Amino acid sequence: MAIVLGPNRYGKAETRVVRVTRDGGTHSITDLNVSVALSGDLADTHLTGDNANVLPTDTQKNTVYAFAKQHGIASPEAFALLLARHFTSSQETITGARVEIEEYPWNRLGPHSFSRDGSAVRTAEVVVAEPGTEVFGGLTGLTLLNSTDSEFSGFIRDPYTTLAETSDRILATAVDARWRFITPEADFDAVFGRARAAMIEAFTGTYSYSLQQTLFAMGKAVLEACPDLAEIRLRLPNKHHFVVDCTPYGLDAAPEVFHADDRPYGLIEGSVVRDDVS
Amino acid sequence: MAIVLGPNRYGKAETRVVRVTRDGGTHSITDLNVSVALSGDLADTHLTGDNANVLPTDTQKNTVYAFAKQHGIASPEAFALLLARHFTSSQETITGARVEIEEYPWNRLGPHSFSRDGSAVRTAEVVVAEPGTEVFGGLTGLTLLNSTDSEFSGFIRDPYTTLAETSDRILATAVDARWRFITPEADFDAVFGRARAAMIEAFTGTYSYSLQQTLFAMGKAVLEACPDLAEIRLRLPNKHHFVVDCTPYGLDAAPEVFHADDRPYGLIEGSVVRDDVS
Amino acid sequence: MAIVLGPNRYGKAETRVVRVTRDGGTHSITDLNVSVALSGDLADTHLTGDNANVLPTDTQKNTVYAFAKQHGIASPEAFALLLARHFTSSQETITGARVEIEEYPWNRLGPHSFSRDGSAVRTAEVVVAEPGTEVFGGLTGLTLLNSTDSEFSGFIRDPYTTLAETSDRILATAVDARWRFITPEADFDAVFGRARAAMIEAFTGTYSYSLQQTLFAMGKAVLEACPDLAEIRLRLPNKHHFVVDCTPYGLDAAPEVFHADDRPYGLIEGSVVRDDVS
Amino acid sequence: MAIVLGPNRYGKAETRVVRVTRDGGTHSITDLNVSVALSGDLADTHLTGDNANVLPTDTQKNTVYAFAKQHGIASPEAFALLLARHFTSSQETITGARVEIEEYPWNRLGPHSFSRDGSAVRTAEVVVAEPGTEVFGGLTGLTLLNSTDSEFSGFIRDPYTTLAETSDRILATAVDARWRFITPEADFDAVFGRARAAMIEAFTGTYSYSLQQTLFAMGKAVLEACPDLAEIRLRLPNKHHFVVDCTPYGLDAAPEVFHADDRPYGLIEGSVVRDDVS
Repeated sequence: MAIVLGPNRYGKAETRVVRVTRDGGTHSITDLNVSVALSGDLADTHLTGDNANVLPTDTQKNTVYAFAKQHGIASPEAFALLLARHFTSSQETITGARVEIEEYPWNRLGPHSFSRDGSAVRTAEVVVAEPGTEVFGGLTGLTLLNSTDSEFSGFIRDPYTTLAETSDRILATAVDARWRFITPEADFDAVFGRARAAMIEAFTGTYSYSLQQTLFAMGKAVLEACPDLAEIRLRLPNKHHFVVDCTPYGLDAAPEVFHADDRPYGLIEGSVVRDDVS
Repeated sequence: MAIVLGPNRYGKAETRVVRVTRDGGTHSITDLNVSVALSGDLADTHLTGDNANVLPTDTQKNTVYAFAKQHGIASPEAFALLLARHFTSSQETITGARVEIEEYPWNRLGPHSFSRDGSAVRTAEVVVAEPGTEVFGGLTGLTLLNSTDSEFSGFIRDPYTTLAETSDRILATAVDARWRFITPEADFDAVFGRARAAMIEAFTGTYSYSLQQTLFAMGKAVLEACPDLAEIRLRLPNKHHFVVDCTPYGLDAAPEVFHADDRPYGLIEGSVVRDDVS
Repeated sequence: MAIVLGPNRYGKAETRVVRVTRDGGTHSITDLNVSVALSGDLADTHLTGDNANVLPTDTQKNTVYAFAKQHGIASPEAFALLLARHFTSSQETITGARVEIEEYPWNRLGPHSFSRDGSAVRTAEVVVAEPGTEVFGGLTGLTLLNSTDSEFSGFIRDPYTTLAETSDRILATAVDARWRFITPEADFDAVFGRARAAMIEAFTGTYSYSLQQTLFAMGKAVLEACPDLAEIRLRLPNKHHFVVDCTPYGLDAAPEVFHADDRPYGLIEGSVVRDDVS
Repeated sequence: MAIVLGPNRYGKAETRVVRVTRDGGTHSITDLNVSVALSGDLADTHLTGDNANVLPTDTQKNTVYAFAKQHGIASPEAFALLLARHFTSSQETITGARVEIEEYPWNRLGPHSFSRDGSAVRTAEVVVAEPGTEVFGGLTGLTLLNSTDSEFSGFIRDPYTTLAETSDRILATAVDARWRFITPEADFDAVFGRARAAMIEAFTGTYSYSLQQTLFAMGKAVLEACPDLAEIRLRLPNKHHFVVDCTPYGLDAAPEVFHADDRPYGLIEGSVVRDDVS
């Protein structure tokens, strides 16, 4: 029996880079949060503190800035690919790289003026490792609400069940979605736009008997709209809105006022996949 | 010398109420966070625990729900007025009420479908007390950025000054604004729309030599656009974007890549007032 | 009628400075978050962008670091005094300074090893302005809970009241306290220790009929223990712990399981003062 | 080619339960945040909205409360085991359960008085699924700092490297640790205590040439102290403390003042394992 080093990685997390591109007097900006994690033969630094195989996390940060300057940022997926391939090709001892990016959207107000669009954050992740390269896109924080067309009934009742069945409730969630591309080549921006639109349309258009049903409808719509995608994973908190009973105050029982609760919340997680793709 | 009770108040904070209004199949929603604070003759509860003058915070919460049901929510300012006047008029011992409201905006996606608009939060505050009633509107979290047309120079240099003067920088802030109405009667929604537009236009249109100058321009524009307002207070963090020097990596010095820093940050606070209004 | 500049100030917020002091092989550390706000004749920078009277916020940050180096940090109050007096005395045009400090406590693990003590944050604020100098101490985030010896009854019942009276409940709060020193000269660390101990002892030892009663007991105990203090302001959220009724599951009704709710919460604010101090 | 349902699960997240146990006038409290996720044959609810196999998340919440009442909370690991086994054994269609728990520690102030200990959060996770049952313990938010005995040199230098080598720096981290038990039977509290102490001692006692080296020393110490553990995973942010150069202000260069930066930060992740355990 021995105690040994297991899987490990290291990197610089949350480098906040804003890239300004000038086209005459018209500017555009890209606002990213970039996290890098590298792996390889790192036994020495763990066992003896010998750092000969360690590319400092400070260097990783510098590389993020330098690449943003030199290459621009075509899309978060493309930028993550560029970085991950650079790290694994530049040093023999770096055999794996994962680059995660959050992109904060901005709306244009003028030729060089912008307002932050707080409605969702776009995400990308690239993993370059021995078997090959995987590219993920996604978004987080897209908060959606249907004020009707949602039921919940016919569920298991056990000795701890007190929930009443309902044929009309608010359904609200903050979408966290992550999709995997079949290959590392795609029009990432176009896919993002189509996937986002498909999710919103499916959420809006589904008469829902459970949030799981809505989740599957959303995932299916994304894969149908985006042939480049192999899979989508959705993580949907059920942001409960409880009807407030105002009859004790002499008011009618129509469900018009709701308490938006913080915790606990339901959490529905699921993936939708093409069955002919690994 | 004696140790005595000083100013005090109590209330229910952060009641999260969502009001759905149905117009046939078309719904609209209002999403609020309501905080109530009451004051009056509260010596007994502090000194002996006699609660005869205490309206429970639970009752305050119930009242928020009941009023949302019964009266609807015309605007956050109007709803705050309704609540504050109710509390002070319903009990002789309640002589003061402050109601603060945050309104989270939603975009319509369909007849009963909505997406949360994360770009800013609207705020309102009403204070009903002995001398009279004051109404405040505002917003928080409106994040704006100009990628040029901002300088900073000609400032004091003392032995601790190392900052270089600059004739071209990014200017970014997250606007926190609070305006005071001359009287409690106004078209609160119209004022909100005009004030928001005026701030954005002034931020975008001002060639800035300091964030203070931009602040004053924004405040002045709001008062000019809104005759109903006596005063506006602005709190503008200077969200620093530092140019990253990429010349060590063999790249040119054009300022295209920036580090968006979290802390510390500048904080510019100021008010703009009509000089003929108390 | 004209639109004019009202009260204003500016400064650098949240400079995070850690000061290490070496006594041979034994180190001590002080971990602060320092915010500075200056005021004075700032009309020009607001109206025309002329910054001749502006001490850059970057210089303010440098000064925080330099003073930490040169003078050490005797206590947050003393360090705030040093800074505020420096700013107002160094430039004729700076007539007011406010310095706010948060101190994060650390426990010693060894001669140069420490663990962060997350139980509360110490606060200090110094205001130097025309009429004189005021010093405040305090703390925030001290979370206390009594699992019994708390009642709530005898309160107002109006048409919106549904709350049952209770003779046994959990009372929990996260103390936010701020005390004002009679003069700027005091043993700030000793006062902090005595005030903190007095608050905890009063919370623990008070059989409570309302959180207001507990608040007054805490404030009175602090003033009794600390003759250097003129006043204390307490802000006590009532962190509700609701009994969960487990009788539907065939269990007894003894109140043993509670739901710790996030929002809404009660918020009790009050001050306790010496009546012979301005 | 078809689009089909992939892996999925659902549950109630973040049920905040406080359990009070009375031993005469002496109380003890346990403060948990419990998240449940269940899996099984859930195709119908995703595809058609038929909820016959769905145990409502509301029921899961009720079960957490009822079990806390009926069985008490021996330890977070034991309570998670009890819940996970209950869910998988109570319904044929529930074949997997994952229960995650955060425990917030409190210090005793008196027989029924407590103060929240904010120094770290204890964590537990139990997964009951087809192959067997796995139990994890851990902690998060344990913030440690060595003010010396840390170097960093001998690393890769590439064209993007500007970092200077250092023979004396501050090393600070917020430990996030997760350990796996060899079997579901162990004295969970004793292991927690020994693991926590071993990590702190290893952090404090290691002269560090890299945070990776410190990570391995901490993990090894935990496995040596706890024969019940198969593996430990550590996630250590490198909370950078940068020396502030005060020589421009006429002060000496001794490293006494540091800027505690927020982002970006290094992130070192690694596991330490027994090589004879699966």
